[in-house]
Amino acid sequence: MKHLPKAVERLISQFDKLPGIGPKTSEKLVWHLLGRPKEDLQEFADSLIQAQEDITVCPMCFNYADTTPCSICADKSRTTDKICVVAETQDVQAIEKLHSFNGLFHVLHGVINPPDGITPDKLKIKELVERIDKTKPKEIILALNHDINGETTSLYLGKLLKSLNIRVTRLAKGLPSGSEIEYADDVTLSYALKDRKEL
Amino acid sequence: MKHLPKAVERLISQFDKLPGIGPKTSEKLVWHLLGRPKEDLQEFADSLIQAQEDITVCPMCFNYADTTPCSICADKSRTTDKICVVAETQDVQAIEKLHSFNGLFHVLHGVINPPDGITPDKLKIKELVERIDKTKPKEIILALNHDINGETTSLYLGKLLKSLNIRVTRLAKGLPSGSEIEYADDVTLSYALKDRKEL
Repeated sequence: MKHLPKAVERLISQFDKLPGIGPKTSEKLVWHLLGRPKEDLQEFADSLIQAQEDITVCPMCFNYADTTPCSICADKSRTTDKICVVAETQDVQAIEKLHSFNGLFHVLHGVINPPDGITPDKLKIKELVERIDKTKPKEIILALNHDINGETTSLYLGKLLKSLNIRVTRLAKGLPSGSEIEYADDVTLSYALKDRKEL
Repeated sequence: MKHLPKAVERLISQFDKLPGIGPKTSEKLVWHLLGRPKEDLQEFADSLIQAQEDITVCPMCFNYADTTPCSICADKSRTTDKICVVAETQDVQAIEKLHSFNGLFHVLHGVINPPDGITPDKLKIKELVERIDKTKPKEIILALNHDINGETTSLYLGKLLKSLNIRVTRLAKGLPSGSEIEYADDVTLSYALKDRKEL
């Protein structure tokens, strides 16, 4: 843009690169930041640098961590019998929030997605197999999204892990809580019917 | 959040402070950033620091600038007869994009908004009066938003500047281009009718 200081343009382009943030919003955010005290910008920059320097990946479960192993893997009160396999760190957060799962996690860092070049060898699948071999858990819970790539990955892992003679389960499919049958999509409704439970 | 590295939490809170970005989006952005090469985070941090260090405010028009005076004030091909008064730097950008205004700008850095504590002395109004006194422009164009605070500021400035015996104009009110009369709000429509123009 004409007559815009170069440093402003650069910062706008940084925000513009973020997902879901377009050029208009990026500009708005930068004007907001420039209107704030200079220390705030420094603090923001420091947080980015710290995130870059301080965060490691747990060598056991591949979750982002600031300790090695991460606080979940290091927690002796948790059972090592169950490993919940998730695609991303944020899925660990979602399940941890429930306070109802007491096992460990394994973060794949993605799901199988061949068009985007994400083949099984790009994910932490080899590491999962090695971990199962070493720690002998009793159950692997696949907690992957119920979309095409999540399904593909679940099917792939199901086949692979069952050959290791281990119990493999996956999250239930069905109607979400609070939903109305009338508005449920066909796939969800047919799963809910097929997997109906005894009262 | 439990089991989240501290550096991640800190970075999430930085994004969370930005306008229009809630905690969910902040998390999403941080996971995205952490999935990018480390140099990208460094580059983002550098841009923030540069924005903090390199950007100054033009002592003439109070626009953000990386030179003193800014590139608009320094441009000898522009007429010094007209000063367009705007609330924020982004308004300068909007008008510059038209390529139809060849005068100078004056950025107030806000509009009068007493409930938020923004009284006229908090804005660059004193500086505008001094500038008019010194540079003797022929016309002041008030290009402030047509909302309550913009109107208040326009009225205040109109009264103040007319006492200096200078021509004061403001942006036209009326129906926006491409709009339909049927859906225009009453205030806009009555302005459009009142300020109708001879064909």
